[in-house]
Amino acid sequence: MTTEAENKILTRTGPGTPMGELLRRYWIPALMSEELPGPDCPPVRVSLLCEKLIAFRDSQGRLGLIDEFCAHRRVSLWFGRNEENGLRCPYHGWKFDHTGQCLEVPSERTETGLARRVKLKGYPCVERGGVIWAYMGPAEHRPPDPAFEWCTLPAGQRYLSKRWQRSNWLQAFEGGIDSSHVSWLHRGELNIDPLHRNTTGAKFAKSTHTIFDVIEASGGMIIGARRDADPGFHYWRITQWLMPWYTLIPPYAGHAANGHGWVPMDDENCMAWTMTFHPQRALTEEELAAMRTGQGVHVEVIPDGSFLPVMNAGNDYLMDRAAQKAGHYYSGVKSIAIQDASVQESMGPIVDRSKEILVSTDKAIIMARQRLLKSAQSLDEGKPAPGVDEASQQMRSASFLLPVDANFRDKALEAVKVREGEPFVAV
Amino acid sequence: MTTEAENKILTRTGPGTPMGELLRRYWIPALMSEELPGPDCPPVRVSLLCEKLIAFRDSQGRLGLIDEFCAHRRVSLWFGRNEENGLRCPYHGWKFDHTGQCLEVPSERTETGLARRVKLKGYPCVERGGVIWAYMGPAEHRPPDPAFEWCTLPAGQRYLSKRWQRSNWLQAFEGGIDSSHVSWLHRGELNIDPLHRNTTGAKFAKSTHTIFDVIEASGGMIIGARRDADPGFHYWRITQWLMPWYTLIPPYAGHAANGHGWVPMDDENCMAWTMTFHPQRALTEEELAAMRTGQGVHVEVIPDGSFLPVMNAGNDYLMDRAAQKAGHYYSGVKSIAIQDASVQESMGPIVDRSKEILVSTDKAIIMARQRLLKSAQSLDEGKPAPGVDEASQQMRSASFLLPVDANFRDKALEAVKVREGEPFVAV
Amino acid sequence: MTTEAENKILTRTGPGTPMGELLRRYWIPALMSEELPGPDCPPVRVSLLCEKLIAFRDSQGRLGLIDEFCAHRRVSLWFGRNEENGLRCPYHGWKFDHTGQCLEVPSERTETGLARRVKLKGYPCVERGGVIWAYMGPAEHRPPDPAFEWCTLPAGQRYLSKRWQRSNWLQAFEGGIDSSHVSWLHRGELNIDPLHRNTTGAKFAKSTHTIFDVIEASGGMIIGARRDADPGFHYWRITQWLMPWYTLIPPYAGHAANGHGWVPMDDENCMAWTMTFHPQRALTEEELAAMRTGQGVHVEVIPDGSFLPVMNAGNDYLMDRAAQKAGHYYSGVKSIAIQDASVQESMGPIVDRSKEILVSTDKAIIMARQRLLKSAQSLDEGKPAPGVDEASQQMRSASFLLPVDANFRDKALEAVKVREGEPFVAV
Repeated sequence: MTTEAENKILTRTGPGTPMGELLRRYWIPALMSEELPGPDCPPVRVSLLCEKLIAFRDSQGRLGLIDEFCAHRRVSLWFGRNEENGLRCPYHGWKFDHTGQCLEVPSERTETGLARRVKLKGYPCVERGGVIWAYMGPAEHRPPDPAFEWCTLPAGQRYLSKRWQRSNWLQAFEGGIDSSHVSWLHRGELNIDPLHRNTTGAKFAKSTHTIFDVIEASGGMIIGARRDADPGFHYWRITQWLMPWYTLIPPYAGHAANGHGWVPMDDENCMAWTMTFHPQRALTEEELAAMRTGQGVHVEVIPDGSFLPVMNAGNDYLMDRAAQKAGHYYSGVKSIAIQDASVQESMGPIVDRSKEILVSTDKAIIMARQRLLKSAQSLDEGKPAPGVDEASQQMRSASFLLPVDANFRDKALEAVKVREGEPFVAV
Repeated sequence: MTTEAENKILTRTGPGTPMGELLRRYWIPALMSEELPGPDCPPVRVSLLCEKLIAFRDSQGRLGLIDEFCAHRRVSLWFGRNEENGLRCPYHGWKFDHTGQCLEVPSERTETGLARRVKLKGYPCVERGGVIWAYMGPAEHRPPDPAFEWCTLPAGQRYLSKRWQRSNWLQAFEGGIDSSHVSWLHRGELNIDPLHRNTTGAKFAKSTHTIFDVIEASGGMIIGARRDADPGFHYWRITQWLMPWYTLIPPYAGHAANGHGWVPMDDENCMAWTMTFHPQRALTEEELAAMRTGQGVHVEVIPDGSFLPVMNAGNDYLMDRAAQKAGHYYSGVKSIAIQDASVQESMGPIVDRSKEILVSTDKAIIMARQRLLKSAQSLDEGKPAPGVDEASQQMRSASFLLPVDANFRDKALEAVKVREGEPFVAV
Repeated sequence: MTTEAENKILTRTGPGTPMGELLRRYWIPALMSEELPGPDCPPVRVSLLCEKLIAFRDSQGRLGLIDEFCAHRRVSLWFGRNEENGLRCPYHGWKFDHTGQCLEVPSERTETGLARRVKLKGYPCVERGGVIWAYMGPAEHRPPDPAFEWCTLPAGQRYLSKRWQRSNWLQAFEGGIDSSHVSWLHRGELNIDPLHRNTTGAKFAKSTHTIFDVIEASGGMIIGARRDADPGFHYWRITQWLMPWYTLIPPYAGHAANGHGWVPMDDENCMAWTMTFHPQRALTEEELAAMRTGQGVHVEVIPDGSFLPVMNAGNDYLMDRAAQKAGHYYSGVKSIAIQDASVQESMGPIVDRSKEILVSTDKAIIMARQRLLKSAQSLDEGKPAPGVDEASQQMRSASFLLPVDANFRDKALEAVKVREGEPFVAV
């Protein structure tokens, strides 16, 4: 059982909190590259781990992610003018560079040197795989750049989207490592979605009864979910958890794979990132068109910069009771990602985990919570954060049929390795 | 005077509060029957006494009113599938019956017997008079089924509606036992409303000066309001309070009677129920048509399941200053029920009763508060809740002319008795 | 630096707070005269210094500003009937006169004398200069009527508007005494606005570097902002602060002058008043037409009685990034007043002044805070509030060119005096 005290540690991410300190040791997906389309483009508000920040690209294209509020009178720099290698507050013209360093206090004579002594909080950014990443931790612990497979592929082989979820990050993340819910919540979609059509459906029968086997990895967990298949075989689906909040879903053979990142905005909101990628080929126009219109595990969002899905709590996610009754959409909610969002948001902004009843299929969730708590504790004791190295990040999800007497662990460790240009292990 | 401490006791209804414990000893109107139209219909969210619940009708038509949140991971069962005699959470397929008993945990082998040991909070329901009633108190104190007159009439002789009022239940209820406000707030409507036309208007004059005579009954109060009438006569209107929150308004001769129930959703919201009924005849098509369009003491609500009136605080109840000036609607607000809602909501969600100045016409309100406080205290001392028996509930409102030297008490006790198939005592 | 404790004192205005007590010693602009157009007009809700009030004009045209809530059951008197020299609560007919004195409790026999003993809080009002002013302080400290120049001019020579700003009053007020921001935030408008066209623009060059010279006055501060002009000359703009919250902006030669009042509604909302006036002539139809459509320092508000600007936080003030880039509107926000509102609201409802970095151009702001703190402290020690007398209020703003070796102080004290019928000192 998760106690109230543990739940608090797991879900609070502000500066100085145990989990907040742990999460600040990783590169954090802050924006999609396209949100800052070019030099001197409009600045964008970003909330990360309970901090309000402003992002911009300066005249040289350098990325800035700094305190949202001007050092002078605390005006939001969202109103700032992005010009000549800095963001200028429109109230009195104070100007800051991409590191947060003040460049000009126009009202003061230059010789006072005031500008030089003023610096806003600023976080280093890197751009990889179509994502602007921020590092919000101590400089001396800055990890190597992100090395997840989908970051390293050519742009044509991946597609990214994100959506705002109105819940704590942990209940979103827990959905991502919870293979068990797929048989239920997403039952209606598994055979109809163009991106997930099971072309090998004839080869095995799947039961809804699931047994979990979890392998602790250096930078997360390899979560095997076993279902009975044709006689003598088990059907295994491996969902990866890569620290701190990435989850990878096994693809069907030949298809692109999907992954998610569940990034805390504050303790009651998170940004759910979705990555679709293929190690061997560009995504097709058909696949891209489907994703752009919110199909598969992507969603249609309101085009106002908020990334709020069109289907949201305010309209009961466009619940369709007739479709629910018919089983067409199992929960009555259309769209795989919104099915997840709807049930996770319905728990309330921060679910009280001391009231849960967990069962064997929650094994991965239980272990992930313990791992997170242990990692936060270790960090506090001066030990490094797990999973910041390239080797830990070079992991895939996988799915396969295995004879009942074969060794899962050996097969799994082999199947999840990233092998550049080689196909996923997937049935 | 009501102290802040007394006000707190009177207005807090959550589990474990003195008033909450008292109110849980009664059958509570939870939904209109038509909100759960048939077996396996969509589940409906219900808030009662600060508890969030989900209501459904199972495949056999049995009523369920259980904890809104799944025992497993606390997902709202509003997303549940209502199928084969139970509500199934769409997240992992846990299934609960109409009592809250878990029937299936599909991921677990049946032999673990887990499902048998899991039970959500569930409250027994009965259906009477077009209402689904819930009992939320201790099983050993479950009272007999509701026996109010309007519950026992054929369906054609009654009409029910409900509306969401954004205030504590007590300030709504107090309006219902406050005969004194009728001469003011509803002045404009008394002679123009088709449901309330006073066909005997010529027989007596009414003064706005009101004297109250209150008779304590076993299950509430018989509240007589006396106004001067033709020389030698008093005009009496008897408003009934039936524990814990029902109020009955006297009809005009020959007309249907109206009653209300003021049911706490939480401490800042209540559901105002309205019942119109006639002991001798079916309501006419003309009467029904008027009520369905929000006339009389019924209101037009926004058809989104919230029961929020079309006229609400957000639009200043469509205040019509010209009509107010003309006296057509005395307060400028159209609709009798919205006149009540507007002034009661304007007090704020929980009015500070320590700041009131009460006068002789507030006698019934003062006595009702004392009775509620005393009943809560008695309950805490192990005594039974008053008014749960059939005899206490078989009461009517009434109105009559009485010679000034006649005994009010004798006449009143006679007039308020329910006599099946006999007309109301009403002028 | 302003400490958190000082910030709290400066920004809290409720009854009993040090700043609240100080502000209650002044006549407070409560409504525009036209909001109460005539005898027995509809009552209007007014929030002032954290108090909820209701304003009305009785049958004789007398002004009432009393507790919003009826003494009886605390119903909002916004629903009241304004009739026969009093406001009558529609719930039970209690009636109050313009002082808050209860006139009638209709249900009680007159001889009880109850009405005489019931009195709602009521504040005296005067009407001057198109404004209904309230005095909320102790009767014995009631100051003489407001004597600001714009109050004493014929109606045709002034124009008033107001808008709701969602921030503490102080951060709005501080914008009004902050001459330094004009060169930045309002840069785009200074030469294009029809009301502010600088017809003498050719006469001097202005630098953006500003030096402040502040003269403490008996009832506020004379804030001189000096910029370099043609060789041998300084260009001076004098912004006036008149206690407690009025700011006057220097006009360009021949034009009308503008002033503001920043009036706390509660601690997170203020009403920003704008006054445009000319000491010698009526405002022209062209000027009035421009102001009525929200040009100049006036704004277009939503016509629902809230005075919320059409451009507000909910729509990001209709930020126009292209116009910002082009420099047409420097901050990207159109309208001078909304430029101020946008940056001030972006600081949050009550900015944390302990996090600011103040510089030499903030001299007036620093001094004003000290003056306010000192005045509150003095009041607490029994000394009078500064600036309540006519002489202190008879002040103007001004602008002029001055030889670099001339004495600013002498010139300024002369220039700011109100001289009836004489032009502003302005270039």
